[in-house]
Amino acid sequence: MAVKRILTGITTSGTPHLGNYAGAIRPAIEASRQPGSESFYFLADYHSLIKTSDPERVQRSTLEIAATWLAAGLDTDRVWFYRQSDIPEIPELTWLLTCNAGKGLLNRAHAYKAAVDKNVADGEDPDAGVNMGLFMYPVLMAADILMFKAHSVPVGRDQIQHIEMARDIAARFNHQYGEHFTLPEAAIDESVATLPGLDGRKMSKSYDNTIPLFASSAVMKKAIASIVTDSRAPGEPKETEGSALFQLYQAFSTPAEAAAMRDAFAAGIAWGEAKQALFERIEAAVAPMRERYETLIAQPALIEEKLHEGAAKARAIATPFLAEIRHAVGLRRLDVVSSAAAAARPKAQALPQFKQYREADGKFYFKLMSADGRLLLQSQGFESPRDAGQCIAGLKQGGDASGVAALGEGVSAEELEQALAAFAAE
Amino acid sequence: MAVKRILTGITTSGTPHLGNYAGAIRPAIEASRQPGSESFYFLADYHSLIKTSDPERVQRSTLEIAATWLAAGLDTDRVWFYRQSDIPEIPELTWLLTCNAGKGLLNRAHAYKAAVDKNVADGEDPDAGVNMGLFMYPVLMAADILMFKAHSVPVGRDQIQHIEMARDIAARFNHQYGEHFTLPEAAIDESVATLPGLDGRKMSKSYDNTIPLFASSAVMKKAIASIVTDSRAPGEPKETEGSALFQLYQAFSTPAEAAAMRDAFAAGIAWGEAKQALFERIEAAVAPMRERYETLIAQPALIEEKLHEGAAKARAIATPFLAEIRHAVGLRRLDVVSSAAAAARPKAQALPQFKQYREADGKFYFKLMSADGRLLLQSQGFESPRDAGQCIAGLKQGGDASGVAALGEGVSAEELEQALAAFAAE
Repeated sequence: MAVKRILTGITTSGTPHLGNYAGAIRPAIEASRQPGSESFYFLADYHSLIKTSDPERVQRSTLEIAATWLAAGLDTDRVWFYRQSDIPEIPELTWLLTCNAGKGLLNRAHAYKAAVDKNVADGEDPDAGVNMGLFMYPVLMAADILMFKAHSVPVGRDQIQHIEMARDIAARFNHQYGEHFTLPEAAIDESVATLPGLDGRKMSKSYDNTIPLFASSAVMKKAIASIVTDSRAPGEPKETEGSALFQLYQAFSTPAEAAAMRDAFAAGIAWGEAKQALFERIEAAVAPMRERYETLIAQPALIEEKLHEGAAKARAIATPFLAEIRHAVGLRRLDVVSSAAAAARPKAQALPQFKQYREADGKFYFKLMSADGRLLLQSQGFESPRDAGQCIAGLKQGGDASGVAALGEGVSAEELEQALAAFAAE
Repeated sequence: MAVKRILTGITTSGTPHLGNYAGAIRPAIEASRQPGSESFYFLADYHSLIKTSDPERVQRSTLEIAATWLAAGLDTDRVWFYRQSDIPEIPELTWLLTCNAGKGLLNRAHAYKAAVDKNVADGEDPDAGVNMGLFMYPVLMAADILMFKAHSVPVGRDQIQHIEMARDIAARFNHQYGEHFTLPEAAIDESVATLPGLDGRKMSKSYDNTIPLFASSAVMKKAIASIVTDSRAPGEPKETEGSALFQLYQAFSTPAEAAAMRDAFAAGIAWGEAKQALFERIEAAVAPMRERYETLIAQPALIEEKLHEGAAKARAIATPFLAEIRHAVGLRRLDVVSSAAAAARPKAQALPQFKQYREADGKFYFKLMSADGRLLLQSQGFESPRDAGQCIAGLKQGGDASGVAALGEGVSAEELEQALAAFAAE
């Protein structure tokens, strides 16, 4: 079975709290360790510009969120971890999709409609204060997803509509230009509980009831001490049902530990004692991450480097795929014969050819030229002609070109596959 | 006085006719020869995707229009001539402007409103069949204009609103993030007459009354023979007023030639003779261009190369300017100290420093680092350390860095100028 691609966008606003960690970061990092899947995580900073126009905040938040994911154990060798704004192919694909998205579709977006409803209720013009970023958000999100052919996008229920819009835009494009895009599906994980905040409501910045993820031990302890409980005295049996304290404890402990705490509640553990136990559990989970976080945040250049590496890895996919999409819509080199015109030719054509040569940098390269003289594949530089030759031999036998060679402009992965298949059939 | 920048977008759809030539191409090329101005002409292929989803047509039309402008005498050494889709900074700037454009502004765009009015008149949903490209058109156009700090955009009256929208979006951005964009002005040239077509109405593809610019002599002659005239016989005096034939003659002749033809009309020239004279005038103007056009169209690789050169010239402006805009909105390297934070520092600071070094490719480079360790300028590779050193010396004396070095990420041209000024003041 084919590898499943999972893509998650991380909004770069605010400072992560315990609820973000248990509800989003931890399950995402666990999922990234599953075999048979390829995980894409990106810092959605183009999206953040829709809501904030404070440049220092955009930069600071990107730094904090990147450091948080790295500190939480994201293995960047295993996954694709990149900053959206490092991938210029994203806004370009956004425009190409814009020309294939119906305005009527976007009129129905929940977030936009909510803004209109509020304006109407306030007696304002329906679009008062609505910026085009909000209205175009679903198209940018479609570009994020479709660029990497993601199969699955884990989202909250409020985001399902955006995935449906991405499917709609992709299907419309495929219908017009051929099957280029993979239709994504929303993945709703019901098992991920939302964490309660200090007051028992969902932990959320808008309720001002959060426990910061990387506060100092002292701040963390003080926050936990302020969790609202009932007034049962020590020795009185306590309810776990509806107890924010218990739910938080459960989120940071093994099933056995949670069961022991349940017994302690029934046995009348004092609230102070329970809070101390919760603090110790959270501290045990957070302290090692906090140390890594503090080390990372003090070295922004190191995080920047990680993101550059991630961008290179992501662009190794995005650059050739965008070239394919550009070709599909007609943004082509003027001297490239269209595939439709080529398809109209007699079938008995010459084989594509590998050409090997040496560059001024002293390295050995090869390229694959189509029978009509177009560049299909351009290799990287090899240290010896032998290395280059072995790579060619591998390609002829069905090997994978990614990592050692890049597609020519306007050449699709399919076209390369067909050209290479001609050798295998030799 | 500062040089005036004039920017013109050329829609890549259809095949140019005589009306396009006399009404747009010829005056634009004449204007580009005026001293004291910098002219930017671009093939608007991202725009063409709004209206057509035929990829072969997009490619073919781009080739024909590029060949037409080159054949008509556009001096690409003197002007900036590029294809929009070769400038990835354009769609990226489009997104940044999208987040700074009010939806209410775009609701008022004439082209969009016309589509809605038609739908409503037809009893359809107001947005039926409206694609987002049409709705977003003014934002893309704003990016085209603002990217190159154009002062003046020659447009027809129907396009004035788009220039106003670009001003509005630019002003909103400048208000939020500081003065980055130049506010453009619409230039309406009343002196450029629209050419009549075969039936006397404005020459336009939609009236099917055009004379193709680069048809063969025989086709051109036949088309001219079919120009509608009145039934006055040879010898009868003829009216120049309202005569399509006379207006066409005038558009392709000197004032003296036109005056002679006016006299011939009064003296009763036969229509056949007048048409022959018109054919000769047009043929004299078009024939040399036609030859160049045919040579060019047969060498798409040559045109492609011209466009690549043009793109490099345009990106020499677009790349650093987009870096400045990205920095302004907060899309910054994580290890770059914000200018706001830097401005808060004590004034007595160290000088920026030039550092010279050699790379693995054997060439000699330098970079200019700010006092706080940021990369301000990165040179190209030089063959000798002497070449690199001479370049540094030139820069210290106020020389121009473009062409030999690129600005660091997030560094504005102004910032570099200030840094270099520090050396001049030494």
